[in-house]
Amino acid sequence: MDNLLYWVGLAAVAVNALTGVLDAGRKNMDIIGVVMVGGATALGGGTVRDILLDRTVFWINDQTYLVAALATTVATFFAVRGLRLPARLFLIPDAVGLALFTVVGTQIALEWQAPWLAASLLGVITGVVGGVLRDVLCNDVPLVFVRSELYASAAWAGALSLVGLQRLGVPPVLAAWCAMALIFAVRLLAIVFRITLPTYAERK
Amino acid sequence: MDNLLYWVGLAAVAVNALTGVLDAGRKNMDIIGVVMVGGATALGGGTVRDILLDRTVFWINDQTYLVAALATTVATFFAVRGLRLPARLFLIPDAVGLALFTVVGTQIALEWQAPWLAASLLGVITGVVGGVLRDVLCNDVPLVFVRSELYASAAWAGALSLVGLQRLGVPPVLAAWCAMALIFAVRLLAIVFRITLPTYAERK
Amino acid sequence: MDNLLYWVGLAAVAVNALTGVLDAGRKNMDIIGVVMVGGATALGGGTVRDILLDRTVFWINDQTYLVAALATTVATFFAVRGLRLPARLFLIPDAVGLALFTVVGTQIALEWQAPWLAASLLGVITGVVGGVLRDVLCNDVPLVFVRSELYASAAWAGALSLVGLQRLGVPPVLAAWCAMALIFAVRLLAIVFRITLPTYAERK
Repeated sequence: MDNLLYWVGLAAVAVNALTGVLDAGRKNMDIIGVVMVGGATALGGGTVRDILLDRTVFWINDQTYLVAALATTVATFFAVRGLRLPARLFLIPDAVGLALFTVVGTQIALEWQAPWLAASLLGVITGVVGGVLRDVLCNDVPLVFVRSELYASAAWAGALSLVGLQRLGVPPVLAAWCAMALIFAVRLLAIVFRITLPTYAERK
Repeated sequence: MDNLLYWVGLAAVAVNALTGVLDAGRKNMDIIGVVMVGGATALGGGTVRDILLDRTVFWINDQTYLVAALATTVATFFAVRGLRLPARLFLIPDAVGLALFTVVGTQIALEWQAPWLAASLLGVITGVVGGVLRDVLCNDVPLVFVRSELYASAAWAGALSLVGLQRLGVPPVLAAWCAMALIFAVRLLAIVFRITLPTYAERK
Repeated sequence: MDNLLYWVGLAAVAVNALTGVLDAGRKNMDIIGVVMVGGATALGGGTVRDILLDRTVFWINDQTYLVAALATTVATFFAVRGLRLPARLFLIPDAVGLALFTVVGTQIALEWQAPWLAASLLGVITGVVGGVLRDVLCNDVPLVFVRSELYASAAWAGALSLVGLQRLGVPPVLAAWCAMALIFAVRLLAIVFRITLPTYAERK
């Protein structure tokens, strides 16, 4: 399980760094701004989780994550700058990153003895806070709050299913894969079929 | 005292969740966005206080706070959506929440051996950071910095009076009630009589 | 070294409080808003560093920093309000604050056993997060991400040079002065000669 968490965590960091760079690029930031926003997107969710749990922050404990985030950010910057890529292209890596981070975050919180509801929320925080930070730093309303196609809700459903499956005695690694598949599937189906949640004001 | 802190803390969480939902609603967020902004408003101030003091975060330590925040958020969402309520209606619960949170925060910081000036500021942080987070997440300039009718200043006056009364030997529970009454009264009087602080640029 | 860190830290807090007040003033905040934004600018970078390293937050541990930040903020408020000062006037104290904070932050992270790359980044965080907080609270895109004249990059170069010089056996105090001079010089030269980094989108 620890091994799975490690590699999945590294992959999620790289994927999120990629989405951070693409969004920062739209604001015409220079390379250092892009690196910092990409780094915050990639490492922000896990950092907030570790601070809330009073764990050693993962990228200070193991610099590999930091190197992965910085390398992906710089590589993406030089690979795609100047190109005008369609925004929809990035929905799939973004959904992968959401699934990976949420499951890793929930699992770590459970191992640190957080109660189940708090653990599921710490998973959601790990999954979405990077993107929230990215949007706040780019001075936008965080997409996760306004975008209507099940984002945080997909993550929360997955986190709760991970908690539930483990309670039912499903082996942790299998439960983790199921929860990741659930998040990814819910998010993609919601995009394809435009499934949305009710908004506050029905009429506008 | 611990008992008082517990119930006052729960009440403050519920009240702040309510104001968070009302503000998030204006941005036409969907239910998950409203729940997250409401939760951040309700739990943000105490979370930042606990992180700064290196305490276990209160809603991870005791999930009851989390349940109170989520339940209030969801109930408010379904109770008031579609209605157009006047903004002034919420100034009184907001003032109650400010008074409760500031006094709880200052008291906790004192018990964790923070020096007096830092403790009073940690009380103010507990009282106002939830609202600041709400405004940053909704992409507004935080109201607390621009609104002119004694808000953070009322909280600070109350926090300092709590510190002072305890130094003078007043029993802690009595001192807490006096400080809460002071914050509530100063805030309401400032609203009624439009008492403001000097701004940076006199002419505009 | 500890003595140097202490005084340099106090000076950096005062300098950053000054720049925070000047920026908050432009948003026509009242005195409490200005004090809070000034305080966040002055103390934010070091606070985030201490939280990430799981150290006791410096201004809770030693209230002197808090007093320095508040006193500078209030004094600046009354000294310069009403005046329209040219923005370029503050580039020099701002460069001094950047150099001081970055070196102090990197040094503290190294003493807390952070690995070298993480330590250099914690130095950059100490140097720039105060300004990022200031801009987020004032609802602007953080200047450090868009301003093109080597800001975070100057800080990072200095932080890496501090790490490198200490590895090479240079005495810590001398290494600290060299790194501060490097950051200050790079930043000022970049302003004078308009040295910029490549941005994401070449055409605009």
